[in-house]
Amino acid sequence: MTTDEAQAAVRRSPLVIIPVGAQEQHGGGMAMATDTVRAVGVADRVAERLAGRAVVAPVVPYGVSPHHMAFAGTVSLSPATFMNVLRDVIASLRAHGWRQFLVLTGHGGNNAALSVLAQEYVREELTFAWTPITSVVSDLIVDVSEVHGHAGEAETAQMLYLAPQLVQADRLEPGATTLDELTTPARLSRQARGPRLSVGFDAYHKRGVLGDPRRATADDGRLLVETAADRIAAFADELLSA
Amino acid sequence: MTTDEAQAAVRRSPLVIIPVGAQEQHGGGMAMATDTVRAVGVADRVAERLAGRAVVAPVVPYGVSPHHMAFAGTVSLSPATFMNVLRDVIASLRAHGWRQFLVLTGHGGNNAALSVLAQEYVREELTFAWTPITSVVSDLIVDVSEVHGHAGEAETAQMLYLAPQLVQADRLEPGATTLDELTTPARLSRQARGPRLSVGFDAYHKRGVLGDPRRATADDGRLLVETAADRIAAFADELLSA
Amino acid sequence: MTTDEAQAAVRRSPLVIIPVGAQEQHGGGMAMATDTVRAVGVADRVAERLAGRAVVAPVVPYGVSPHHMAFAGTVSLSPATFMNVLRDVIASLRAHGWRQFLVLTGHGGNNAALSVLAQEYVREELTFAWTPITSVVSDLIVDVSEVHGHAGEAETAQMLYLAPQLVQADRLEPGATTLDELTTPARLSRQARGPRLSVGFDAYHKRGVLGDPRRATADDGRLLVETAADRIAAFADELLSA
Amino acid sequence: MTTDEAQAAVRRSPLVIIPVGAQEQHGGGMAMATDTVRAVGVADRVAERLAGRAVVAPVVPYGVSPHHMAFAGTVSLSPATFMNVLRDVIASLRAHGWRQFLVLTGHGGNNAALSVLAQEYVREELTFAWTPITSVVSDLIVDVSEVHGHAGEAETAQMLYLAPQLVQADRLEPGATTLDELTTPARLSRQARGPRLSVGFDAYHKRGVLGDPRRATADDGRLLVETAADRIAAFADELLSA
Amino acid sequence: MTTDEAQAAVRRSPLVIIPVGAQEQHGGGMAMATDTVRAVGVADRVAERLAGRAVVAPVVPYGVSPHHMAFAGTVSLSPATFMNVLRDVIASLRAHGWRQFLVLTGHGGNNAALSVLAQEYVREELTFAWTPITSVVSDLIVDVSEVHGHAGEAETAQMLYLAPQLVQADRLEPGATTLDELTTPARLSRQARGPRLSVGFDAYHKRGVLGDPRRATADDGRLLVETAADRIAAFADELLSA
Amino acid sequence: MTTDEAQAAVRRSPLVIIPVGAQEQHGGGMAMATDTVRAVGVADRVAERLAGRAVVAPVVPYGVSPHHMAFAGTVSLSPATFMNVLRDVIASLRAHGWRQFLVLTGHGGNNAALSVLAQEYVREELTFAWTPITSVVSDLIVDVSEVHGHAGEAETAQMLYLAPQLVQADRLEPGATTLDELTTPARLSRQARGPRLSVGFDAYHKRGVLGDPRRATADDGRLLVETAADRIAAFADELLSA
Repeated sequence: MTTDEAQAAVRRSPLVIIPVGAQEQHGGGMAMATDTVRAVGVADRVAERLAGRAVVAPVVPYGVSPHHMAFAGTVSLSPATFMNVLRDVIASLRAHGWRQFLVLTGHGGNNAALSVLAQEYVREELTFAWTPITSVVSDLIVDVSEVHGHAGEAETAQMLYLAPQLVQADRLEPGATTLDELTTPARLSRQARGPRLSVGFDAYHKRGVLGDPRRATADDGRLLVETAADRIAAFADELLSA
Repeated sequence: MTTDEAQAAVRRSPLVIIPVGAQEQHGGGMAMATDTVRAVGVADRVAERLAGRAVVAPVVPYGVSPHHMAFAGTVSLSPATFMNVLRDVIASLRAHGWRQFLVLTGHGGNNAALSVLAQEYVREELTFAWTPITSVVSDLIVDVSEVHGHAGEAETAQMLYLAPQLVQADRLEPGATTLDELTTPARLSRQARGPRLSVGFDAYHKRGVLGDPRRATADDGRLLVETAADRIAAFADELLSA
Repeated sequence: MTTDEAQAAVRRSPLVIIPVGAQEQHGGGMAMATDTVRAVGVADRVAERLAGRAVVAPVVPYGVSPHHMAFAGTVSLSPATFMNVLRDVIASLRAHGWRQFLVLTGHGGNNAALSVLAQEYVREELTFAWTPITSVVSDLIVDVSEVHGHAGEAETAQMLYLAPQLVQADRLEPGATTLDELTTPARLSRQARGPRLSVGFDAYHKRGVLGDPRRATADDGRLLVETAADRIAAFADELLSA
Repeated sequence: MTTDEAQAAVRRSPLVIIPVGAQEQHGGGMAMATDTVRAVGVADRVAERLAGRAVVAPVVPYGVSPHHMAFAGTVSLSPATFMNVLRDVIASLRAHGWRQFLVLTGHGGNNAALSVLAQEYVREELTFAWTPITSVVSDLIVDVSEVHGHAGEAETAQMLYLAPQLVQADRLEPGATTLDELTTPARLSRQARGPRLSVGFDAYHKRGVLGDPRRATADDGRLLVETAADRIAAFADELLSA
Repeated sequence: MTTDEAQAAVRRSPLVIIPVGAQEQHGGGMAMATDTVRAVGVADRVAERLAGRAVVAPVVPYGVSPHHMAFAGTVSLSPATFMNVLRDVIASLRAHGWRQFLVLTGHGGNNAALSVLAQEYVREELTFAWTPITSVVSDLIVDVSEVHGHAGEAETAQMLYLAPQLVQADRLEPGATTLDELTTPARLSRQARGPRLSVGFDAYHKRGVLGDPRRATADDGRLLVETAADRIAAFADELLSA
Repeated sequence: MTTDEAQAAVRRSPLVIIPVGAQEQHGGGMAMATDTVRAVGVADRVAERLAGRAVVAPVVPYGVSPHHMAFAGTVSLSPATFMNVLRDVIASLRAHGWRQFLVLTGHGGNNAALSVLAQEYVREELTFAWTPITSVVSDLIVDVSEVHGHAGEAETAQMLYLAPQLVQADRLEPGATTLDELTTPARLSRQARGPRLSVGFDAYHKRGVLGDPRRATADDGRLLVETAADRIAAFADELLSA
């Protein structure tokens, strides 16, 4: 996109989708850029569904990943840095006239910082929405391990659909799959209701994986990715029409 | 508590419960200190159930409340300030030997900042857990308005049980109770699944109330408060035994 | 106070009194919350004397107490955090229309940060006044040890009057009472005129107490508390009439 | 790259190349991502020449671009935010064992912040080197306008070589090409020696372009890109061998 | 002083005196650098009396002066900036081995920030003392206006003694001299005991002067300056001997 | 300068020259204040040439000097602190009406921070120019060592002209003078073109000197100082006339 195209987009495409990812371990078989790839993949699909009413900003390829720092190669921005990147990006685009922003995160570790940002913007004359990917389609994640999540069935399926060249199928291996095998703090951290506890992913499993990625298929991935795009686009459509 | 008692408590009571509240509008009939009162009420009950294994720190009476700033008297700490208060409190207590902390918030607006803090502590040699009150017992909140929450049935019930003198029954009045009456952004912000959107509480209803507080009873409040205390204490007990 | 009452108070009660305290050692016989209790006690009395022209905000129960960190249970906010809490509280109340603020501190360790804040507000369209308690009535503190102050005669007297249940009379014990018993740095730090030096309270006495709290009486406390309230209210009255 | 590959790379590939770019106007014919694309293009070529002794981190796609904010679509991180991103990335990689970092910037606006970072690291046990692209081969930029630079001959040539699909040849147009046409401040800011003055790029030309991009060829671009990669790789080789 | 002389001084001269001043209005007849000049003048005299046991650092010529910003030429550092300058200076000198610091301020507006710094250093392994000039000899200031202080009798006397060339005697003019002529806030701010209130110096008098500088003599200045140096040196001597 | 003179200067002298220096090692024979002295010396000469159209602010006597911290007595402000000092000075003077600022640095270590500041001001309604001294006249530095610079021929010459009493001629001694004697990182850091690397000055030579200061003469110094003043004044003159 050139500056002239941007100039035209301010009016035609009032929504800016900002994908944010992470550079962090995703087990032995998936690229550390997994969350970045998924964020971009879904962002592009959402924009396509919005048929010109949205533009996609360059992806922020680093996220908040302290819980993965036990694994080599993981990069973690502090929540403050991560928020400042988004504050600066939004302030810049706001100066050009945009007022509606949707941050699409491929990484759950970014959720807390995004929630804080959402609070800061609540009194401003702009719309700041944000969304994870997988939890938007959590009802479609079935027939998986009791414990599942990071680098597990759903994330692997999405990657098999979006970027199969970044999945080394022969290196996929199961991580923690049952609550019974977890230590007490790790198990407490997985409770749906009740007090919240955060643990490093090495506390779940020596490979930092939740679930069994070998069970993932590209077909499952298509369902998750395309449905997430459908739902997020529907949300954006309502917002744009409001 | 004196300094000598604190000295003894470092070993006997390895868990510090830090209640945090808010000073914000709670409709026409409830004190702005409602979340503070509830946080202290539950914190004390949890400590009691833990029979000496926990101490309760002085309550932080201000929280993160930008979404209520349209209503007079509301005070909002920035997320950064709120986090720094907790960082300093925890650093101080850590210097005295404590290693386990449970922040108990009466105000949902504090959740995002607490989630960020939890991430920061994940790599430290300490346990940082946190919990809201009402969502811990959300399964017990039945027979309420379609839209309910802030200053609604459940919060009012808790106050009728914990501090009836701070409830002016004749001034309780219903706020937004159905999705249909909400504007699009307000309705989108109430979706359980899907993208997250934050709106000021004046966008829900001119009185900033969600639900019908007139339906609350002290009996309902007892159930919510005592069950929340049971569940949080059970969590803490597991943690302390780990 | 409800939000409606706050709305009415903006005009009727143009002065906000913000009590700030501390959570810090006060010797073997007094609660760590001593400064918080005293700040609230005097704040309420000042407001009462002002007959509706002032409201009292929730107390900030933590202060700047690095010099007491050698004693278990002490919590110290950094000066920056402490100032940010007050900045946020004042900015919030200012947004609702208040323009006059009086911070009443029960803890001398907060004075420096309050002085800095006062400088910041000097160019703003608001009145920021602040006051300690004991030094306002220092002329009434007679017949005390040569060295006296923290957790000594005057503070204990105030607590015996305001909250006798928080004083364990049998655990009161004298601390440093004469200049001769002090080390050179400790003695230099007590000079009324001349260069200023700060030392930790463990440098004064192993119990961190200055003076002999056993000599305190509730009658002395009444005199100090009520006179302080008189004088601070007289100041506020002048300010409000200006 | 997976976490296992990263684990192996810590020893085999002791140098991390971090490309940083910008999202900013590049005239009517080039993508706003031009500096990002060039940074990645050269970084990959340098790594290739180092034959396994270096890894390339994900590119930072936003830079410090206040001087382009007059043009739609430009995003500018504050220098503080930009530096914090790099501080966090480097701290993370350092935790995994890396000690040598080379930041390769496609955008001159990042130079000042990189110089500050270099000063901060000078007392640390790590090597922090950084380099622009074009100025490394400035001796090869000949036969260009008197005024040239941003979005001009050299940058366009590089893009025609690296990513011709991002250049809209028919929209390339000359910007400021002679000192005479500049205002006094703009002219003063172009002096090679003497006091430094920064001006917005709209002060140079209404299109923010310096030089005549129509004169650029892919062949020129190949020379610049490949020679820059040669020289930077030679530098890195010396460093790695030291 | 060269680096070699500094190297030798770390052991021989364990005390560093850091003079800090201000650049702010001092009425019609005195230089804005008055507080800087006085700080250096007294610092040099204190060092001389300590006979080689102290070194004097370069003066910080800007201070915290928001209350003088109504007057042209005044420069005010924020308290945070001012404190950071001293933190950095002290951290640097500490790295070279110094452990004892005495900040000597010619400007009362710096006192609050210095008090905060003193609190921060109380738990560090270093001695941080600080001192104003005039208040150290306040008992010697007699026969002056009821209201006196900034740019008044005592400061002018010191300047007549230390740097008469910076005093334009024919431009000295009286400012506020009696409490009666002050507005209520201005008068309240001058109370010795009781709540503290800060006002801009334009609230005292249109020329920002307190007292009558025409009454000052160089002889009075000698007494104040030399006695202040005596007393501060005596304090430093005790500290160094401890 | 008094406040009244400042008031008059806002219109008559629209340019403020702010000299900034450093307190850092300059070899065995020159004062640590060398850069401060040179900054003031040139600033005064520039102002003189501008014949009343510029005023000179008090010098900032500390700079960014981490690369000299291996040598006793060196003081280094962090880049953030250094920038905040200038931000506060400029904000203050701006409040009084000044809009044009020229920072003149005697120390190259300040360049990076000044470049960042220049970026920040590019979108403000003010002129922020800055300049080093020696590099403005680099074409006049001839017949010197292959390696030269800090505390070498040119700086010493300037000091012999400006402040000979601060040069101990018998203690001047050569430092690193040829590229051959440097370690690889030190040599790489001296390349004119190519990647940038910063090293501590102890990595160049055990005395931290670049070049041979014994070859310096006061006559050389006069040429450098007076020509630098000429050129900077010519720049300022153009700027003021624009």
